[in-house]
Amino acid sequence: MQALQAKMRKKIRAAQEKRDLVIVHTGNGKGKSTAGFGLLARMLGHGRRCAVVQFIKSGDRAVEKLLHSPKLSWHYVGDGFTWDTQNRAADIARCREGWAIASAYLRQPEVKLLVLDELNIALSFDYLPVDEVIAALATRAPGKHVVITGRNAPEKLIAAADLVTEMREIKHPFNAGVKAQAGIEF
Amino acid sequence: MQALQAKMRKKIRAAQEKRDLVIVHTGNGKGKSTAGFGLLARMLGHGRRCAVVQFIKSGDRAVEKLLHSPKLSWHYVGDGFTWDTQNRAADIARCREGWAIASAYLRQPEVKLLVLDELNIALSFDYLPVDEVIAALATRAPGKHVVITGRNAPEKLIAAADLVTEMREIKHPFNAGVKAQAGIEF
Repeated sequence: MQALQAKMRKKIRAAQEKRDLVIVHTGNGKGKSTAGFGLLARMLGHGRRCAVVQFIKSGDRAVEKLLHSPKLSWHYVGDGFTWDTQNRAADIARCREGWAIASAYLRQPEVKLLVLDELNIALSFDYLPVDEVIAALATRAPGKHVVITGRNAPEKLIAAADLVTEMREIKHPFNAGVKAQAGIEF
Repeated sequence: MQALQAKMRKKIRAAQEKRDLVIVHTGNGKGKSTAGFGLLARMLGHGRRCAVVQFIKSGDRAVEKLLHSPKLSWHYVGDGFTWDTQNRAADIARCREGWAIASAYLRQPEVKLLVLDELNIALSFDYLPVDEVIAALATRAPGKHVVITGRNAPEKLIAAADLVTEMREIKHPFNAGVKAQAGIEF
């Protein structure tokens, strides 16, 4: 443990560069969005301007309400957009709307953390071209971290990202017969 | 995807029981504590009373500050306790102090979410007996979710938990020579 910590400290000291990060949370487990919102809480705690674009409607109004701040902008793509529609053209149109908002934030230097919640799903369905997303990330305003969440992050995005975590489901209570509930699932 | 969603919905409908959860975030990746703090934000957003016991000192004062609420209690175990001491007896004594606080919250019905941050490390070092922790979880006041974070969650704890997620490091910027920075690491 101590050797490990010493090694880690050496790595950290050796890290000369302070880089704006593209962070990806993927995998089939819980915590991808929730960890994104935790980073949001941390950034807002540091007084920095942040924005969220949610590409799937979710019940996370509770987080939005709690983190409510003049420094936080929160956008939902579409209305009741839950990705189980059979209308691919409509899905793509809504993703485009969301991406237009996201792109604007990528260009704004004031926003220091941008959470693109469930964007990976849009990418994995080819609702948005991954190359376009990567190019926009690469040319974003400096001083901005971006968190992209959702299952099935495309390999190209993983290659372009700085920090990638896979949330793996080891055990899930739905499988043991437990209801989704306030505060945990939404 | 639609077949998968239908299957999931069926599972959710089939879930008759609404159970208080023991949630474990483990693995070598980022997001274990951060996802715990995201759950905290969600629970506080629902107006529920919450508590945090941090078993390792960290820089997360930013989260504590932002989530500052009369409904949230936040405890740090020891002072400058970073687990790199050579004094095992002192480490154990501090873990015991933290565990006494945690145990009291486990018995309090008012607290609906208790985050035991980095408790897994204390368990994996045998600073606290896992059987004692599991017994206290099993006999806790009803209506309380518990989130336990940290690498190397013991197998016994995983077996006793309801929801377990492994955060796996796929890519980490320290390895690419990037400094730890405000809002991301602390």
